[in-house]
Amino acid sequence: MVKIVVDCFGGDRSPGVNVEGAVRALEKEKDLYLVLSGDGERIRNLLDEYSPDASRLDILHAPDVIDCHDKPTDAVRLKRESSMMKAIKLLREDNTVRGLVSTGSTGALVAAALLRIGRIPGVIRPAFCPILPNLHGGVLGICDSGANVDITPDHLLQYAVMGSVYLSETMGVEKPRVGLLNVGAEAEKGDELRKQAYKKLASCPDINFSGNAEGRDVFSGDFDLIVCDGFSGNVLIKSVEGTSLALLKRLKSDIGSKFRYKLGALFMKQMFLDEKELMNYQNYGGSVMLGTSKTVVKGHGSSNTRAVTECILQAYRMESASVNEKIESILGKVENND
Amino acid sequence: MVKIVVDCFGGDRSPGVNVEGAVRALEKEKDLYLVLSGDGERIRNLLDEYSPDASRLDILHAPDVIDCHDKPTDAVRLKRESSMMKAIKLLREDNTVRGLVSTGSTGALVAAALLRIGRIPGVIRPAFCPILPNLHGGVLGICDSGANVDITPDHLLQYAVMGSVYLSETMGVEKPRVGLLNVGAEAEKGDELRKQAYKKLASCPDINFSGNAEGRDVFSGDFDLIVCDGFSGNVLIKSVEGTSLALLKRLKSDIGSKFRYKLGALFMKQMFLDEKELMNYQNYGGSVMLGTSKTVVKGHGSSNTRAVTECILQAYRMESASVNEKIESILGKVENND
Repeated sequence: MVKIVVDCFGGDRSPGVNVEGAVRALEKEKDLYLVLSGDGERIRNLLDEYSPDASRLDILHAPDVIDCHDKPTDAVRLKRESSMMKAIKLLREDNTVRGLVSTGSTGALVAAALLRIGRIPGVIRPAFCPILPNLHGGVLGICDSGANVDITPDHLLQYAVMGSVYLSETMGVEKPRVGLLNVGAEAEKGDELRKQAYKKLASCPDINFSGNAEGRDVFSGDFDLIVCDGFSGNVLIKSVEGTSLALLKRLKSDIGSKFRYKLGALFMKQMFLDEKELMNYQNYGGSVMLGTSKTVVKGHGSSNTRAVTECILQAYRMESASVNEKIESILGKVENND
Repeated sequence: MVKIVVDCFGGDRSPGVNVEGAVRALEKEKDLYLVLSGDGERIRNLLDEYSPDASRLDILHAPDVIDCHDKPTDAVRLKRESSMMKAIKLLREDNTVRGLVSTGSTGALVAAALLRIGRIPGVIRPAFCPILPNLHGGVLGICDSGANVDITPDHLLQYAVMGSVYLSETMGVEKPRVGLLNVGAEAEKGDELRKQAYKKLASCPDINFSGNAEGRDVFSGDFDLIVCDGFSGNVLIKSVEGTSLALLKRLKSDIGSKFRYKLGALFMKQMFLDEKELMNYQNYGGSVMLGTSKTVVKGHGSSNTRAVTECILQAYRMESASVNEKIESILGKVENND
């Protein structure tokens, strides 16, 4: 039985989507046990709408909520009765609880994970690794998408190792092709950080380094994992999501502008629906935090039920596949090679 | 008469598109005079296909070419007989020549511009400012897209001033709304560089600062200019271009996959063509380098004729509107306010 705690408050549509998302995850994985953190009465009322398997479900009462205006470190120190901090406390203190899923404040979650949960031995800093569809039938991981802004070449090497284990163990990507996000394809491109990182990545036998990746490589199909500092990773993922959504929205408004287009669109309805579904980030869960000693998954603030379910299943797969133990073992080897 | 030198060698489709692009620009602007740099005989042979106004056209013979394998600083020092370096020399030494357009090596062009052309008084470092369609009928400038990787808050303030003058004087954007590329919308987001830059931008009366912009804001319509370090700017623009092209390509292949879709697409042909045209970066010319004492425009290596023509017209508009003089005057004021 894999036990995961779900922070049910903090997202734009919480607690409704969090509670329903948890119920759906329980239906999908019979080996999953969930603890729902938040206002007990509200959670119970929401659960009454479904018929969840009560033998695999607990409620952890937490009267308070962290919102996006709370300063992360203050939230960790002062909001001990919040759904997120009570979930973090349970994760820290109860060895049977293996993971946490939250759609709440990213800053507070990062701070709490670093301060209270700690790292896998050998990891310098945990990092986020969201997943995108690569438009070639597969997926692309981007690590880091925003946990750490100031980094060294060693951080990037660790992101490459952690992301590779994650993709191969939970997504079935064999020998993930790792790209270093840079301003050009040639080895000598970029600043000192990228030049040094390139050398480290190229000489590491435990990853499949495939050279520099550029912003346009998200959908080139040439990479399975792109490693980067948290600032440019955040820019990258938001611009890809923003551009996809803007274009689809624009096509929709184009179609509405002329009778002829509306007519044509009738024949193509399924195609547009399929594309929208493919580009819908809600289907890809959230960002797994790689490098914390227990699994932490951050869902988008705008997560719907499907996204919350996916986040919970991501946490479940991380623990079922013992990703953290494998990361620890490979990082130990990498350190010895260094 | 505005005199511009065009480096005709170095792009993927040079010199053909460069020469034809120059001829088309001459047809559009009667007040334009062009000098074409490169192998004289090949340029003359290409010109024979058109009937350009010979009274507004010169050839600057240069037997050598800089390619993408040449190290930028070596190219500047050693390839003095190349089309790019002879064009730079002319720009430097002939006061009647006001601008340069090149589709050749970006690195060599940046190095040559910095070493040989020099900066507008007061400018710390010149920066690239490419233009994208904002999908709301207007344009968006991104500054810097890759000239400088290591920067300070003062660089970002200068990018905001220079980009604002450029957009208002040559694109008719009134009071351009400036965004600071960051990992979140709130003022306190990001690293020390962004926090300091935010304060400087917010307190500068000579620009219209509109807060932090995120990767998704390229098409939100909330900004006319996004300022950023050259690394994340490069990631941003390449990911937007790459995502747009990948999605359009995918729709095209979807349409080919089913008879029903092909039929529907017949009604929507014009719509798809319009969208492709709107997203075609070739229509937006190249990246103007803001901050050099004479105008330098870098066209994409893959530029077609239309793109080269647009680059030349961008240089022409920069000089016709005396953008550099206006930048110098506003930067002087900003310095005094500081």
